[in-house]
Amino acid sequence: MKPLASRTLNLKQSGIRAVTQMVNEHNGINMGQGICDLPTPEAVQQGAIDAIRQNKSIYSYHSGIPKLRAHTAEKFSTFNGIPCDAEREVMITSGSTGAFVAACLATLEPGDEVIQFEPFYGYHVQLLKVLGFKPVFVPMSDRSWNIDFDALEKAITPKTKAIVVTNPGNPNGKVWTKKELETLLKVLQKHDLWAYTDEVYEYMTYDGNKHLSLASLPDAFERTITISSFSKTFNMTGWRMGSSVAPEQVIEKMGLLSDLIYICPPTPLQHGLSEAFGMPSSYFEDLGKDYDQKRTQFCDALREAGFEFEMPEGAYYVFASFEKLHKEYGLAGFDNDENACRTLIEQTGIGSVPGRSFYADPEKGRYYLRFCYAKEQPVLDDACHRLRDFGKKLKVEQG
Amino acid sequence: MKPLASRTLNLKQSGIRAVTQMVNEHNGINMGQGICDLPTPEAVQQGAIDAIRQNKSIYSYHSGIPKLRAHTAEKFSTFNGIPCDAEREVMITSGSTGAFVAACLATLEPGDEVIQFEPFYGYHVQLLKVLGFKPVFVPMSDRSWNIDFDALEKAITPKTKAIVVTNPGNPNGKVWTKKELETLLKVLQKHDLWAYTDEVYEYMTYDGNKHLSLASLPDAFERTITISSFSKTFNMTGWRMGSSVAPEQVIEKMGLLSDLIYICPPTPLQHGLSEAFGMPSSYFEDLGKDYDQKRTQFCDALREAGFEFEMPEGAYYVFASFEKLHKEYGLAGFDNDENACRTLIEQTGIGSVPGRSFYADPEKGRYYLRFCYAKEQPVLDDACHRLRDFGKKLKVEQG
Repeated sequence: MKPLASRTLNLKQSGIRAVTQMVNEHNGINMGQGICDLPTPEAVQQGAIDAIRQNKSIYSYHSGIPKLRAHTAEKFSTFNGIPCDAEREVMITSGSTGAFVAACLATLEPGDEVIQFEPFYGYHVQLLKVLGFKPVFVPMSDRSWNIDFDALEKAITPKTKAIVVTNPGNPNGKVWTKKELETLLKVLQKHDLWAYTDEVYEYMTYDGNKHLSLASLPDAFERTITISSFSKTFNMTGWRMGSSVAPEQVIEKMGLLSDLIYICPPTPLQHGLSEAFGMPSSYFEDLGKDYDQKRTQFCDALREAGFEFEMPEGAYYVFASFEKLHKEYGLAGFDNDENACRTLIEQTGIGSVPGRSFYADPEKGRYYLRFCYAKEQPVLDDACHRLRDFGKKLKVEQG
Repeated sequence: MKPLASRTLNLKQSGIRAVTQMVNEHNGINMGQGICDLPTPEAVQQGAIDAIRQNKSIYSYHSGIPKLRAHTAEKFSTFNGIPCDAEREVMITSGSTGAFVAACLATLEPGDEVIQFEPFYGYHVQLLKVLGFKPVFVPMSDRSWNIDFDALEKAITPKTKAIVVTNPGNPNGKVWTKKELETLLKVLQKHDLWAYTDEVYEYMTYDGNKHLSLASLPDAFERTITISSFSKTFNMTGWRMGSSVAPEQVIEKMGLLSDLIYICPPTPLQHGLSEAFGMPSSYFEDLGKDYDQKRTQFCDALREAGFEFEMPEGAYYVFASFEKLHKEYGLAGFDNDENACRTLIEQTGIGSVPGRSFYADPEKGRYYLRFCYAKEQPVLDDACHRLRDFGKKLKVEQG
């Protein structure tokens, strides 16, 4: 067979599927992949069902049906503090991924460099690579995840065109402060760069940390492509529904690119999603409270199991270090992230994602695992129980 | 604002929206865009509704749910004559577009040349360009749409990597004969090229023309990426459901690329589509018969209106010449395709697509319009009535 394109050579099935399989074999609980298994809201389900029945099944406009764009513009204006025009500055995308792809293709030339803070969301990095762009990495400080703005300045070259801001962060749950965003904006302005923000966990912030959109700062809008998703907020990861707000000229081109690559987000599901905006504000408050409670519960259990981390400020992940299990407790099978992932499944049934998935240099993720706590309550209770048992045995063995 | 990427400079909103708007202003009938407005089958609707109710709403495997892949493999084996393995050689894609994007990215290096026969489906050409590849054009003969294999040989360079085969053809309805496909295969083998086939209209062939998949020929499978769609067969253009069959190594990489760019086809809609395969074979026979009748009815009316063309062999379009209206009848407003499109809306309310959309050189499409006859019967009746009235006036004026 003819050789395949060189961009595919390093593309490999992620280890997440192997983790899933191993978890199933151990009759365990998969806290690896960022899947939220809660139900889609009733009104949204019904809206999609009505649309299917009414045969709203043909192509929509590439940037989404007017009703959904209008609701989304209103949400960007009020929740995100980004006043915008529904017709010209907002689009509905095929998931946040669809927005990210369109943003990159609308603004980057082949070989352009894009800065990613480490630990990163792997899909951003892989996408940049397969589309012909070059990710450049700037590390955040371990565990507290502060931005080293000097390191950022040093990473910028004449080829740098954009910076990716994942806020709240995946895997580390970092919520960017106003001061950090202001400092970042100065860097963007100084070097005339774009920002692509990934704000898919915007409704999930804790301990008084407030979600702040970069584009809401004065003079930030003109250089920011704000990307969001409905997947996490309305429990519809498989519906492929995202959104973006950016200057009119950018949205026009992103729309035309999306037209070619995606045609449109799934039409009947767009109609269903439109119904989400009639829900009371208590939905969003309850969502935040529910995840906050789950975060506290899971993080407590994880600490009892010997993991170390600072409390995540947002999103629904904990990025936790098991270095102590290896170095202090001398526990077998915890000498690196892949072994630790396997050992933890064997001993507790709990699946996670090895830390190397979030770093360019796997060694940097060596002592980290990422856990997703977006689980239905009984499942989360079970997981915490398993972790506590693991912790108890640990203490007994340590005497 | 910073300049946008150079790949976006020539991206423009297609004229289709302007046509739609003009048609609406004239209270007319839009036969431009290839939208089929028939209802999605009941079983498929119900399957999607059940999936939404059962909360089958999280990410699926990037290449589709196993049930749908199995049904699709069976369909590729029996209908297309391409025996294949459901798990390793078949994938569900986000529309045929999703398959085409993945096929190109899996097999082409930046700057590689891909041959397109003219008239072409514009999305293929535009997609190749924005992804960094180079379309090269080989004309088919006017009206009979024969392939000039000498011209094809001459168009091949050391940079040529693939040939696009749209069968049945859009806009011209060409159904490739076995002999043509065999000759094409020899060219592919001689120059070691890939073929990407677009077979989205595979169930719509007429007058004894049989759909034949290139990959069903001996030794063709190894170099063919077969692309299909469920949009046209089950009236679900807005559901974004396509499929592909290709060698295992190709499907593996196409799946990983789709994972990055699309994540997965919409999950609840995949479950709905799975129910389509329980329908009796009469569904497909009726589909073919229904379109055949519509084709004859519309083509007759179009001829009476002075258009010239050979009967389309497949798909649901007529690509018709109005050269006679301009050159023989001396009709005002028919001197080129854009003017003719406008004039026809003004005089009959019927929207179409200007011929230049299907050629690299707009001059070649100067006397063509494309019509889509996939309309509900009363709408089609109305359209034919309008065309006949136009034809009658023509005769009266000509005396």
